[in-house]
Amino acid sequence: MASDKKQPRPKAVTPKGFQDYFGADVTERAAMLAKIAAVYHRYGFDALETSAVETVEALGKFLPDVDRPNEGVFAWQEDADWLALRYDLTAPLARVAAQYRNDLPSPYRRYAMGPVWRNEKPGPGRFRQFYQCDADTVGAASVAADAEICAMLADCLEEVGIARGDYVIRVNNRKVLNGVLEVAGLSGDDKDAERGIVLRAIDKLDRLGVAGVRALLGEGRKDESGDFTKGAGLSQAQADVVIGFMEAKRDTGAATVARLAELVAGSPIGVAGVAELDEIAGLLSAQGYGPDRIVIDPSVVRGLGYYTGPVFEAELTFEVTDEKGRLRNFGSVAGGGRYDDLVKRFTGQEVPATGVSIGVDRLLAALRATGRITSASAGPVIVTVMDRAHMADYQTMVAELRKAGIRSEVYLGNPKNFGNQLKYADKRASPVAIIAGGDEFAKGVVQIKDLILGAQIAKNATLEEWKDRPSQYEVSRDQMVAKVRAILDGQG
Amino acid sequence: MASDKKQPRPKAVTPKGFQDYFGADVTERAAMLAKIAAVYHRYGFDALETSAVETVEALGKFLPDVDRPNEGVFAWQEDADWLALRYDLTAPLARVAAQYRNDLPSPYRRYAMGPVWRNEKPGPGRFRQFYQCDADTVGAASVAADAEICAMLADCLEEVGIARGDYVIRVNNRKVLNGVLEVAGLSGDDKDAERGIVLRAIDKLDRLGVAGVRALLGEGRKDESGDFTKGAGLSQAQADVVIGFMEAKRDTGAATVARLAELVAGSPIGVAGVAELDEIAGLLSAQGYGPDRIVIDPSVVRGLGYYTGPVFEAELTFEVTDEKGRLRNFGSVAGGGRYDDLVKRFTGQEVPATGVSIGVDRLLAALRATGRITSASAGPVIVTVMDRAHMADYQTMVAELRKAGIRSEVYLGNPKNFGNQLKYADKRASPVAIIAGGDEFAKGVVQIKDLILGAQIAKNATLEEWKDRPSQYEVSRDQMVAKVRAILDGQG
Repeated sequence: MASDKKQPRPKAVTPKGFQDYFGADVTERAAMLAKIAAVYHRYGFDALETSAVETVEALGKFLPDVDRPNEGVFAWQEDADWLALRYDLTAPLARVAAQYRNDLPSPYRRYAMGPVWRNEKPGPGRFRQFYQCDADTVGAASVAADAEICAMLADCLEEVGIARGDYVIRVNNRKVLNGVLEVAGLSGDDKDAERGIVLRAIDKLDRLGVAGVRALLGEGRKDESGDFTKGAGLSQAQADVVIGFMEAKRDTGAATVARLAELVAGSPIGVAGVAELDEIAGLLSAQGYGPDRIVIDPSVVRGLGYYTGPVFEAELTFEVTDEKGRLRNFGSVAGGGRYDDLVKRFTGQEVPATGVSIGVDRLLAALRATGRITSASAGPVIVTVMDRAHMADYQTMVAELRKAGIRSEVYLGNPKNFGNQLKYADKRASPVAIIAGGDEFAKGVVQIKDLILGAQIAKNATLEEWKDRPSQYEVSRDQMVAKVRAILDGQG
Repeated sequence: MASDKKQPRPKAVTPKGFQDYFGADVTERAAMLAKIAAVYHRYGFDALETSAVETVEALGKFLPDVDRPNEGVFAWQEDADWLALRYDLTAPLARVAAQYRNDLPSPYRRYAMGPVWRNEKPGPGRFRQFYQCDADTVGAASVAADAEICAMLADCLEEVGIARGDYVIRVNNRKVLNGVLEVAGLSGDDKDAERGIVLRAIDKLDRLGVAGVRALLGEGRKDESGDFTKGAGLSQAQADVVIGFMEAKRDTGAATVARLAELVAGSPIGVAGVAELDEIAGLLSAQGYGPDRIVIDPSVVRGLGYYTGPVFEAELTFEVTDEKGRLRNFGSVAGGGRYDDLVKRFTGQEVPATGVSIGVDRLLAALRATGRITSASAGPVIVTVMDRAHMADYQTMVAELRKAGIRSEVYLGNPKNFGNQLKYADKRASPVAIIAGGDEFAKGVVQIKDLILGAQIAKNATLEEWKDRPSQYEVSRDQMVAKVRAILDGQG
């Protein structure tokens, strides 16, 4: 066309930071989400699907995670309104809980799964669209609601294929931490800066170790590069309280609770937090969720600005090899806790809420890393085309195979070069090829090729035992489906 | 808070033209899509999930539908790039087919399902986000690929619950129409305006009838409001050719093909189109897809600017009552056809492609209209809370019920007012409530209330036969699960 010259061709590229998912990457995730949805449903949670688009006003402009206050959303103006893509599934829930508050049951248990969008700088392993899979209970103040979410999370992990013993759900309580800060003399309004430093220091325990955290609690710390981070300036005694909290985990939940109770003695909020932890542990163990699955662990401090009571995190405890070849625990795949301010933004009324978010991509990666997803060769049986005039016969063959539940297809490219058809079958990971030309139609037979066995024979051609094994069979036309079924069953 | 006064509260509203979906609306759609995906998969199609966001450059700015050239997309600028939400699933497929052309199998059969976004003026029943569910074959020039899509569409409809006889798939060919225009003397480059008027007129047959279309083919037509639409200015003889085409459908496919062959005699493209129609019908009938399911119908003229060969449309033939109380055929739920130019935009190379798009919301509405979705009361069993001190026991009860696969939950609101708990159970459409207080725990029993039967008894309280029927049972604690199961089974 004349216009081809004037207009340059568009580039066929995935936008930066986004991804395309093919085949098993799509279906395996869908299968995992369906299993999780079934557990959520069994627990009485109802599905909710809000639109991807919200008004910026309803969404709030920024993510709640205090560590990244500038993380943005994708937003644009429509007439007078600013619209944006949701950045999580909790903000839309808050909007729905406020908007439909007279119609929804209370408490409202809902689950949601779907993509969310973050306007972050793209980077390795950092995507601008990814799946979340949440369950929340809105309107239940009782810690029984938190305990239920923890139990449900354990059930979800086992349902998708994480074995008991390969995960642990760690539970803590934000109020205990507040109590510790109070005991350490850090509860006044004028201590905001110190509290911030202490919280960030605790969060770095994994990376810096106790000595590093202690430095940050005191005068400060010089890192490997020589940069100096100013500390909170706590006294030795104050720092001891905080370190004591971080190291409060004991062998049993009861012992941990007792140790925490000592640490927060004298702080009403701290005492209340310890009582809640104790109650959750009691509720869970009565239902059979003992410390082999759910433990009290004071080192869990997540999303500190967001949560107001119990917080929890699911960690996979088996080891995998990281990108630098080191063995390490797989780590966190889900987390959540109690939050009370989200609906208040809309209505002015405080509504207690608690929930969990499962990291869909992380959990899927874990299942793949441990071979829990046996991605069976789901390639189709290929009916090759030897003679285009017989197309109706070939299509009738696949119709029969499909009716028997066997995934199959006719080769629909140019059939002239038979080698291309076999290459295509190879690319599709086809387990079986069917071949029928003029001779076969005249005799009322088909040739059936076991492609998996054929590949093995080719690989082992020099070995005596493989030499004479046939991988192609001639069967009468009416035995085709049965023979294909037998070959597939034999392939496992 | 002090800041509450300064900052007005955000409005909790769904953005204009968008929707929230609750409970069964989400799960029923998911179940329907899973069934369709299974059929697509059985036909050898592979899943593809592209991101919601594309570059405007890759997407093209406008929808292909000629009837709405100004229909827009949601777009915004990111640094140097313009990004936009996809408006269908075909444009991203074209991008993927070009981008990965060296890695994908050829032909490439892919299916995709997910939301798409249209920046349209919102209106009744017109939404700015909705689901599409497509299957396409890229790289197959043979009409066997079109026939396969038609057969697959029939299988999909039956798989989700549309009975044979309640649907028909109509097949036509764009080339036949081109041939008819050629025979009518409308094939020259200078006849572009006339062709446009003729095509739009044919598309209005349903609404205007033959007389109305004839007026538009001739001088023009004054509608009920008095507005005049200029016609194509065809002669009587020219108009007869076009009308003959629209009325070419005969009782059998062979007769229709013969009639079309008469009409396009002398037009090479028309003759080729008729031959393709004949071949498709032959391929389908050989596989058992006869005229009870798939028919040749020249009145199908869809997306005219877009398609280059076979076009098809699935129509549900049963009657429903429309919003004005009139009986009418349910109408179209899916359509598609062959298109060749989409990948060419990127690579300059023409790649033959054919595909189908199922209207997810329309098909779901059809299943609901005909009672094909029996939305079983999926409400949970409610374990009420008579005594908060027994929370661990209540949670143990639901844990047992869930382990038996029974959807259930503990009431987690404030338990003080028992009436509220029963109101909640009602709102959740609970089939069964469990009640246990101090007396029951002391005796080792629970009360089990059949809420469905209870409601029936309440409704029929004056009738003798209902009077003495019990709807509440006391059973020993260890019989709880068995009794609940028996009640649920009895409720069907």
